[in-house]
Formats: sequence, structure tokens, C-alpha cells
Amino acid sequence: MSSNSFGKLLTVTTFGESHGPAIGCVIDGCPPGLALAAEDFRHDLERRATGRSRHTSQRRESDEVEILSGVYEGRTTGTPIALLVRNTDPRSKDYGDIAQTFRPGHADYTYWHKYGIRDPRGGGRSSARETTMRVAAGVVAKKWLAERHGVRVRGHLAQLGELTPDGFDWEAVEQNPFFWPHAAQVPALEQYMDGLRKSGDSVGARVDVVAEGVPPGWGEPVYGKLDGELAAALMSINAVKGVEIGDGFAAVAQRGSQHRDELQMDGFTSNHAGGILGGISTGQPVTASVAFKPTSSILIPGRSVNLAGEAVEVVTKGRHDPCVGIRATPIVEAMVALVLMDHALRHRAQCGDVGEVAPRIA
Amino acid sequence: MSSNSFGKLLTVTTFGESHGPAIGCVIDGCPPGLALAAEDFRHDLERRATGRSRHTSQRRESDEVEILSGVYEGRTTGTPIALLVRNTDPRSKDYGDIAQTFRPGHADYTYWHKYGIRDPRGGGRSSARETTMRVAAGVVAKKWLAERHGVRVRGHLAQLGELTPDGFDWEAVEQNPFFWPHAAQVPALEQYMDGLRKSGDSVGARVDVVAEGVPPGWGEPVYGKLDGELAAALMSINAVKGVEIGDGFAAVAQRGSQHRDELQMDGFTSNHAGGILGGISTGQPVTASVAFKPTSSILIPGRSVNLAGEAVEVVTKGRHDPCVGIRATPIVEAMVALVLMDHALRHRAQCGDVGEVAPRIA
Amino acid sequence: MSSNSFGKLLTVTTFGESHGPAIGCVIDGCPPGLALAAEDFRHDLERRATGRSRHTSQRRESDEVEILSGVYEGRTTGTPIALLVRNTDPRSKDYGDIAQTFRPGHADYTYWHKYGIRDPRGGGRSSARETTMRVAAGVVAKKWLAERHGVRVRGHLAQLGELTPDGFDWEAVEQNPFFWPHAAQVPALEQYMDGLRKSGDSVGARVDVVAEGVPPGWGEPVYGKLDGELAAALMSINAVKGVEIGDGFAAVAQRGSQHRDELQMDGFTSNHAGGILGGISTGQPVTASVAFKPTSSILIPGRSVNLAGEAVEVVTKGRHDPCVGIRATPIVEAMVALVLMDHALRHRAQCGDVGEVAPRIA
Amino acid sequence: MSSNSFGKLLTVTTFGESHGPAIGCVIDGCPPGLALAAEDFRHDLERRATGRSRHTSQRRESDEVEILSGVYEGRTTGTPIALLVRNTDPRSKDYGDIAQTFRPGHADYTYWHKYGIRDPRGGGRSSARETTMRVAAGVVAKKWLAERHGVRVRGHLAQLGELTPDGFDWEAVEQNPFFWPHAAQVPALEQYMDGLRKSGDSVGARVDVVAEGVPPGWGEPVYGKLDGELAAALMSINAVKGVEIGDGFAAVAQRGSQHRDELQMDGFTSNHAGGILGGISTGQPVTASVAFKPTSSILIPGRSVNLAGEAVEVVTKGRHDPCVGIRATPIVEAMVALVLMDHALRHRAQCGDVGEVAPRIA
Repeated sequence: MSSNSFGKLLTVTTFGESHGPAIGCVIDGCPPGLALAAEDFRHDLERRATGRSRHTSQRRESDEVEILSGVYEGRTTGTPIALLVRNTDPRSKDYGDIAQTFRPGHADYTYWHKYGIRDPRGGGRSSARETTMRVAAGVVAKKWLAERHGVRVRGHLAQLGELTPDGFDWEAVEQNPFFWPHAAQVPALEQYMDGLRKSGDSVGARVDVVAEGVPPGWGEPVYGKLDGELAAALMSINAVKGVEIGDGFAAVAQRGSQHRDELQMDGFTSNHAGGILGGISTGQPVTASVAFKPTSSILIPGRSVNLAGEAVEVVTKGRHDPCVGIRATPIVEAMVALVLMDHALRHRAQCGDVGEVAPRIA
Repeated sequence: MSSNSFGKLLTVTTFGESHGPAIGCVIDGCPPGLALAAEDFRHDLERRATGRSRHTSQRRESDEVEILSGVYEGRTTGTPIALLVRNTDPRSKDYGDIAQTFRPGHADYTYWHKYGIRDPRGGGRSSARETTMRVAAGVVAKKWLAERHGVRVRGHLAQLGELTPDGFDWEAVEQNPFFWPHAAQVPALEQYMDGLRKSGDSVGARVDVVAEGVPPGWGEPVYGKLDGELAAALMSINAVKGVEIGDGFAAVAQRGSQHRDELQMDGFTSNHAGGILGGISTGQPVTASVAFKPTSSILIPGRSVNLAGEAVEVVTKGRHDPCVGIRATPIVEAMVALVLMDHALRHRAQCGDVGEVAPRIA
Repeated sequence: MSSNSFGKLLTVTTFGESHGPAIGCVIDGCPPGLALAAEDFRHDLERRATGRSRHTSQRRESDEVEILSGVYEGRTTGTPIALLVRNTDPRSKDYGDIAQTFRPGHADYTYWHKYGIRDPRGGGRSSARETTMRVAAGVVAKKWLAERHGVRVRGHLAQLGELTPDGFDWEAVEQNPFFWPHAAQVPALEQYMDGLRKSGDSVGARVDVVAEGVPPGWGEPVYGKLDGELAAALMSINAVKGVEIGDGFAAVAQRGSQHRDELQMDGFTSNHAGGILGGISTGQPVTASVAFKPTSSILIPGRSVNLAGEAVEVVTKGRHDPCVGIRATPIVEAMVALVLMDHALRHRAQCGDVGEVAPRIA
Repeated sequence: MSSNSFGKLLTVTTFGESHGPAIGCVIDGCPPGLALAAEDFRHDLERRATGRSRHTSQRRESDEVEILSGVYEGRTTGTPIALLVRNTDPRSKDYGDIAQTFRPGHADYTYWHKYGIRDPRGGGRSSARETTMRVAAGVVAKKWLAERHGVRVRGHLAQLGELTPDGFDWEAVEQNPFFWPHAAQVPALEQYMDGLRKSGDSVGARVDVVAEGVPPGWGEPVYGKLDGELAAALMSINAVKGVEIGDGFAAVAQRGSQHRDELQMDGFTSNHAGGILGGISTGQPVTASVAFKPTSSILIPGRSVNLAGEAVEVVTKGRHDPCVGIRATPIVEAMVALVLMDHALRHRAQCGDVGEVAPRIA
């Protein structure tokens, strides 16, 4: 598996850089017959898009998806689906100063040491623009999961800096640019973010995601575990520093008698496990939480060195995103959908003719 | 990649079940010329072994590793290394009752739904015995990393239930069965565990791991990220519910000005990143933290259902491990070593002839 | 995918060396519920075994397969199936002389250059003993293909040196140690082989294989082609130098009007394609032909050099197999079965819910 | 590994269809620092292009390669290289009639049975246009192999229908549109092809390829064999029905004393092995031969059935290529180069620090 490919049966290969002419992806292994058109990508790409509020960077992209292959008369053919999105707003000049320096907290230093060469424009391959294609690929997975299995994947912001939700309402999530589940707090969040923007600093965020309707049986023991692959998928998103499944780190201080989810014929009594046991889905909602670090592209000067080994001060000018976590929800959903679809196909491959022998609890 | 194989160039395939005749693994891709003998495995397998204290289950295994292939005259040949460990203490009868029930918090329910068939003896494939072979494979990786790159991987218990260390001393870690970094607390830990055993309950644990000496440049952008693959590796260990890199979830509430590690010619000023940026190692210590849930095999009865759909009460008899996290440190180290070795080889493949063009900060 | 693993969903990992304590394999991805026992391996391992006639080397092995995992109460559980075969007749001393020389036609020279180290005993990893485990893994695939899909894979010797069959009868194939399809020729073959043994030389062979009952649709376009993967599988067998599908090299001189297989409602009019078009099975028998080179382990001295760069003469003593092709039929069948099973699972994964929309011709 | 991806470390993912807006590929794993520009692709794409003589189909394509990513200031960055080629001459209407029929010898029937849906335009994914991107990817591999290892890959037509070369001169190969190694025969070939075109029929071809300068040690035992992967790569090219390495099928009738290549300090005495032993390169030229079947897109009517199960007659109108083998040489070279580069990187990964311990014969 190449390092820009993801998945075993439902494989996604992304390509392109933020300041190149285009970005794209190839999705291979999608079953035939799924209805798919360019319009299907619009909603999630808009959710991810920049420029929707003054709290995100002012970079404007139209993000129109062009389907190059894999679809005929509105349905997937089973052959690889190639998607392309042209970059229309590069604004290279914002990044001209930093070609020779290592911006602290960015991948500049590591890229120089790995490759001996670096494309400084906009973060090159490490840019968040690449995640646009993940969201696009995720659209296909979400659609298939919903239509074929009744599975629904949705996420929300669960923490912004020190702030946490005072209430919870899924309806609210799609009605504010923060994906915040409590409408009443939105003004306070906006004020918080304004303060952050003025200070030139940034803050981290936590995104929670839930997949409902996942049947039991998805995932494989040992190294093909559903939670292991979710962890890899989520950790691979830019700026992620932690992943939890179910109760996550809270389980450390729990007792076994408290943590274990008991079974009764009308359902499990709890879901501390987060819908996964032994690496396989239980039929309960699959829940995960993702920690995003605060962006290092801030207006506050930072100390660093340059290629010549001289001490320098680095300041990011122009586009400044005080919290990358705000736009991360669609990306988190996309990765979860891609992993789930991959596992659904793998389960069908190995166990497609296993009948229902055990009672369904969830 | 099969689901019982792990790694891209340094590949580990494990096999065997806890109550079968043997367990083993095949390590492929190890460079030739590494000194290796059966004695090399003893130390880490003992660290992982059960029966070293009254706080772990009373199952006794000799865990002698037999090298079937891949070594000639004391050195690896470059061909696959097969290791075998015979199971000598199965005690099948302890598990006889549970063939038809779903033990809450275990993989029984999920296995039945996935495969329509289940080997009830000792957890079958989901048993912790499989991790013995991970530790064995990890020995090879640790050795190669140390000899070839001067990399050292070591872990310790960072939290036991609610208890955390009052001090830190690496020396202490290897001198108590808890891998606890503060000798003075050991009596209190033993008392805590005795109480737990008497209550028949269990508790979770957190293991921290550090890899020192990792050069910058290991890892690949996007989907071959070092942190992504560490997350997958660690999450794949039995009972893991969360993985953090560097500051992990603490980064959510940090400011960017605080989180970013600045560079100076005499070193980085901090290591909030945990030694990885943009998915590639920076040269700083790689740090991760792993959350283990409390074991569900406890002596307190739990409610469940059986295959016939009847409500039943489940009690684990016999072997009872109040905290699987106690023995997890060598497993966590092993997985980190395996991922690092895999990445070292991948980096050599793609960038083996890239010279030093950037100054070394760490 | 490691280099000692084969397959995408039905994965086989082999391990062990001819003069090590044991050889084995791990088969991962086999669906649950398949009846499997140690006795099932006996027939094909005997077909492959040495010592059945005076025309093969006098090495005697019991080749008893031990199932270490993956089977419970006589049925596969869906978890990895590990098989082990102990080496009982190594006779190391036959090979003592050649530690420092490069036997012409063998892999000695290439191994030294690749690894800088070499296990000289019996060919180490390149030995034909490794193919025993391929045959064992193939047993599982053949069984599943037959029971689940009614697919039957069988092969026969199609050429021995210059000799070709004068007639064709599948019955005859299993009744002589040559897998020759024409009983009347067997005495002549034996005479031919006796002459070869006396001369101390060897000869090549061609094995043909047919898979009947393969439904249309197995295989994936471009790089997942069924014929491409059959070619890889067959070429990976020791001593193979050529692979053909259908008419193979004969197609070079054919006209399109002659080569193409026309369709009629009661069947295809011919099978020049060998059952595969565009990389996907057509429903016609899948036919392939494999060329085996003559063994280089012969009693006739050959010129070579040794590690010190001195010219030497090399003679193989002891075991001498005048034609490795004689025992290759079960290996060829096994590889074909493994590839077909892998593709059956992959097809089920992606197209498991595609209905019958086109008329079945074959 | 997805079915439209190829390679383990140097991975190529192709996408696009012949009548879609564009075709492209993503090459991942290329080391950084290789000089690369759009002009580099021109030569080999022209060699493959149609319209260079009246003997190939009259489809005209400009085949301009656009580099979307992976190159900065004229050198590869180590990040994925995405290439795009726009389709400018689709002429959909030529294929309008065949949407409902199965063209004999084509993949129509198999695609319908696999996917239940089919894009009829120009062969969709099974079209030879996809091979344009293979040639493009091959350009990168050829360049790296030449610059980094002094390896040169070149091919020629070795048989056209019944015709074989009367002489051999590498110079001639690039000077006629047949890649024929004997200039004097070219008029006869043109006459032969004219006759074929008039008859509306087609013929097969054999392409031979040689890779010189390959050092010993590339390839891995058992399943990572260089010859096995070459076979897969070559068999995956449209219309291929057979692959040979070295003497191939001729080895069947050879004696061991004759086939084995003896070693002397000033070189091997022969190269029956084709440069590969035990799956690993020997340092001798790697030689392979590929059999192409005659095109089934001919003007002679053929019998078939349609989706409704009715007997029909099928005739290809418009573009008619009497011999796809004529343009296959650059494709064969490209696949060989890609496999060799992949193996070079894999060898460097595992054995990058193995010194020269054995004398070099070739």
C-alpha cells in the first residue's frame, strides 16, 4: 500500500498540492450501481469550505468536483472513480518568505530532513487542502453506507479550547459554522474566536463522531481491527494528536464492573465500548473522539532557525486560521465513513454467506 | 495485507490461539546480518509473563521461543524469521461454561455475529496470549533499532486506575512488577491491587512510551504517517481504547503560541508534538500514551444473554487478571519498535541517498 | 504485502526452511464454516511427495500436517489457519561442500549478492520443500472452491523434455507418477527417465492446468487481473520460466477472426482466450500452461567460482531429481486454486449484490 | 493494494477512461531529487502514439502530459507525482451500436457479468488508452534507473504473425514504426500489414525486452520474486496471453547441463536464465518475451449474442488496429522499468547496508 493510498478493498488514493493546478483522488473498489453525480459532493465540501465565517481563513475556493471516470449514466460502474478539483485561489506570494526557514510546529523541518528538498508553497503536500479530497471520497462512502446499510455518520465539535457544550442537540450542529451542538452558546463562541483572532493566536479542538446503524461483525481480529483502522484514519488527519474509542482515556480510572456493557434481550445497557469489542462492531453506535492541536500558523512571532543554521523569527502573514478544528468535522466523518465502507466490503467478502445464528441485541 | 499481518516492509504475521498447541509469528523483511538467538527473547517475554506477582493471573507459561527459520550461524539471513512458542498450560476446563453465552465486555457476541461460529476456549484469537508473539517480534525490532540507529524504546505505567506517579525515575520502572516509575509507591500499588483482587473487580491503566534517538525523517505524508501507524499499532493491542501522541488531548485547550515547539540551534525548546510533525519524525523523542480499559473477565457476576436468547448471569471463574495494563508495557514497546523499524526501512528505500542538507536541531 | 505472503483477501504466508526444524504456513481470510481436518491434506501432499517412484529424489518425508489454529470442532472459524509440517529427514551432510561455492543455475550467487550471507543447507528458502506448504494451503482453497462454487482445479504433465502425450485421458493422470494423461506411454517415460538418471542430467517439463466451473466475473481490470495474478502465482514456483493463458504464444501467429471466441446462446464456440477476457473470467474453463526449466542439481560437474573468486568444479552428490516438473502438478493446481479463491472473495466483496443481468453463455 | 494500483514501494495508480475527459496516474514513492519535466514524457508517448503510420488506428491524440504535483523547481520532491493527459479525440459515436451487444473477444461479456453495468464507449476501463499512463509512469522509472543505477530497458518486436527477424540491429528498432530489429524487412512488413488491413483481420505479435545493467540482488525469495512480478506486470497489459523469462518454454526440452549458466571470473558463460535465479537478479541482462493475441476489433463480422439473449452479428466500424503489438514495445518497457525500480527500492530498504562480500561475475 503506498503512503498516499488508504484502505484495503475500498481504496482511496489522493494526489495534488495546495498550490499546484489541481487536487484529486481515485476511489477504487466501490461497488457498481451506486447513484453518483457532481452535485452530491457540494454539501460536504461546503461544510468544509473556508470563508463561511470570519473565524476561518479568508481563502476562497469554489471546490467544484469533476468526475473523470467510474460513473456512467449516473451510476458507478465498479471501475475506479477519479475526482478532480481545480485550485483557483493559490495566492502564492503569501508564502514567499518562508522558503528557507522552518516554521515552528510545521512540517518544514521534517520534510527537509526526509527529502532534502521542499516545496514551500502553502505547505505542499502537508496542507489541509488535501483533506478536501478526503471529504469528497467520504461522500461516496457515506452515500453507499446509507443506501446499502442504513448507516449514518455524523460528527460535531465537542470542545473548543477550554469551552465545552452546555447542552446537546443534533439539530443545532448543522445550523452554526462551529458544528456546535448547543445553539445558545454560539454567540459566546464567536466572541471567543474574535478574541483569538485579534490576539493572533490559535486554539485546539475536539471533534466527536458517531456512526449509527452499523451492524455487528465489521472488523477483523488482531491487526484488521475496526478501531485500529479508525485510529489510523483519524490520526492521519492534519493536526490530530489523539484518538479515543468509546470512553477512551476515561476507561483508565473505571472499574470493570462499571465499564463493561451488559447485554439484555432488549439492548445493551450501556456503550462504554463505543460500539467495538475485540476489534469488531457490536451493532451499537460506533463512537470516537479526536483531539486537534492548535494551529502553528499564527501571527505571533516564533523563534526558529533557517537552512543556513541562523536563528530567525518567523511570522505568518495573511491567512490565519485560529482553529483548524472548526472545519474538521466533515473530515472526521469522511474518514470514519471510508473505514466503515472498507470493512463492510471485507466482511461481505469473508462472511457474506454466514447466516444469522446469534440473537441481535443492538 | 491480511488482517493478521502488520507492517509494510518489516512485516509481522502472527498465528495461533491460546488453547491451541502453539502460537507463533513470521517476521519478514528484517535485514540480514543481525545477531539473533533464542536467548534474546527471554528478557522481554519474562517482562510480559504472568505469574511474576500475585497481582496477575496464575497462568504459568514457559514461553520458550524456538527459531524455525531466518537465522544461520547466529545471524539473520534476510529470509523470513519464524518463531514458535508452545502452549504448555492451557487448562481448557476453566472455560467450559461459557461456550454458549456472551460474556459482557468480551468479543464473544461480535465473533458469533461475524463468523457464525466461535472457539470459546480462552478467547481464541482475541486472547492476550497472541500478544506474546508481538513482544517476541518486537525484540527483533528493538535489537535492530538499537544496533543500527541507536534508537531506544521504553515504556512505563503512567496511571493505574486513579493513581498516578508522585515522582519519576526510569531505574525504578524495571525494578517492580508494575513498571511504575516511582519506587516509594509500590507498596501502595500492591495494597490497591490486593483490594481489587478481593473485590473481584478490575481497573484500567495508562502506559506511556518513549522512543529516543529516532532521527528526523521517518514517516510519510498523508497516509503513511508515523503517528497514524503508531496509532493503528497501539489501538490494535487488546483492551486499548485511546492513543495520544505528544500532548494528545491536552493540546485541545492549549494555545498555538504555547503548543508549538520552537527551534534553536542548540535544540528544540519543548516537545509538545511528541517527536512527530506532519507525520514525520523530528529527531526529538517520540512519545505516546495508551489507554487500557479494565478487564471484563471479573469475578463479579454480569448480566448477559446466551445463544438461545435467554437472559443469563455470567461469572468468570479461575484466572482473574485485575489489570491487564500491568503487563502491557512490553507490548506497547514492541509495537512502537515494530512501527519504527518499518519506517526506518521505508525511509531508507525512498530517501537512502538524500544527503544532510538541513541543520540538525535534535 | 510482504514477500513471503501471497494474496489480497485469502492470504497465505509461508515460513520455514528445508533443513530447519519445520515448515509451515498461515492462511488468513478463509471464510468460517468450511469443514477441515488434518486428513484432508494427505492426498495432495502424497501426490507431491518424493520417494513414490525411482524417478524422483530419495528424500523421504512423512509430511504430516498439524493444524495449529483456525479450526474448531472440525470447521474453520474464520480466524487464521496455521499449518505446520515437521522436517524429519534433513540429511544436512549431503550439502556440506557447497557452503562456499555458487552452484551454477542455483540461487547461491544471487543470495550472496543480496544478503551478504547464505544458509547453504539444502537451498534454504529457495528449496522446493517450501512448496509443500503451498500445496497444503491449496488444499483449503480447492475444498472451498469445490464446496462453495463447484469449481474443480486439476493439472497434468503436458510435456516431458521432448515428449508429448499421444492421447488424452484425465483418468490416466492420477494413475501414474508422472501425471501423464496417456497410460500407454508410461513405460516409455520410465525408460526415458532411467536414461536421464544414469546420465546424471535433467530435463524440463510443461504442466497444463484447467479450472472448470469458474463463474464469469472473477478478476478486476487493469492490475487486479485474474490472468496477471495467475501469472505471478505460477511464475513464483521454483524453476518456472514461462506462463501462458489459453493459446498463449500460439496466439501470436493467429488471426483475430480465428482467435476470438464467438458467443452463441448454447455456449462459446471455442476457448482460445483460456477462460479470461479483460482480466476477468468468462465462465469458460480457465486454462494455463507452465514451463519448468531442467534442474541444475545434476551429477554432471559444472564450472563455477567460489566466494574467494577461484574457479571450481561443482558436483551435486546424493539426492538428484532429474525432473522437478514431475512433482509440480499439485503445486500448479494449488497456486491456481489460491488465486481463484482470492478472486472469488474479492468479487463477492465488490459485487456481492449485483444481480444476474446478462445471459449466461458458459 | 487496490486493483488499479501496482507496485509495493514505487506505486502507480492509474485512473481515467478512454472517452472520459482525461486519464492520469499517480506515482508514489519516487525518491526526491530526480530531474523531471513535462518534456521528458514526449519521446515515449510518441513512440506509443497512434497515427504515426497507416498501420495503426487513425485515432489522433496529442498526449500532452501535465504534472499536477510532486515536482518543484524541476526536481521530484518525494511526494506523489500526479500526471494528467486530457482526452481530445473521443469520437463517441463510432461505438454507439455496441452498447447492448457483447463483442466477441472483448471484455463486454465479462464486465456485464461482474458489474451488471457497463460503459460501452471505447472499451471504458479496458481500453488501450489506459496504457498511455503506464508509459508515462514508465518514463519516470526509466529515468531513475538510468541515472541512479545505469540500467537501460529496451524492447523490440520479435515476431509479427508468422514473421520473425532475419537479422538483429538495435539501431534499426527505433527507425521504423514496427520496432523491428532488421531494417531490410520493413517493406515486407508494411506489405504484410496492408494485406491485413484490407482483409479486415488482425494478427498477434511477440515483444522481447532486455534490461541491461541490473545489479545482482534485486528481487525477494518466494512471493516477491522479480520474475513473478515481471510476469504479473506484463500479463496485465491488454491482450497479453503469455510471458517468458530467459529461455522460457524452450527450457522445457533442454537438458540441465545445457540450460544452467556456468560462472567464470570473467563472466557467465550463457544466459538461459534470463538474468534471474531464485527470483533474484544475477547481474546478467534480464530478458523477457511477451505474447500478444490478435485484436478482436476487426472488420470481419463475428457471431455473438446481445443483452436480450438474441443471436447477433457484430462488426467493428471505424478505427481498426490490425496489430496492437506494434505499439506495445514502449508499454512492455515501461512495465519492466516500473517493476525494476520497485525492486531497487525494496532491495535498498532491506539490504542497503550489506557490503560486497561476493565476487561480481556480471
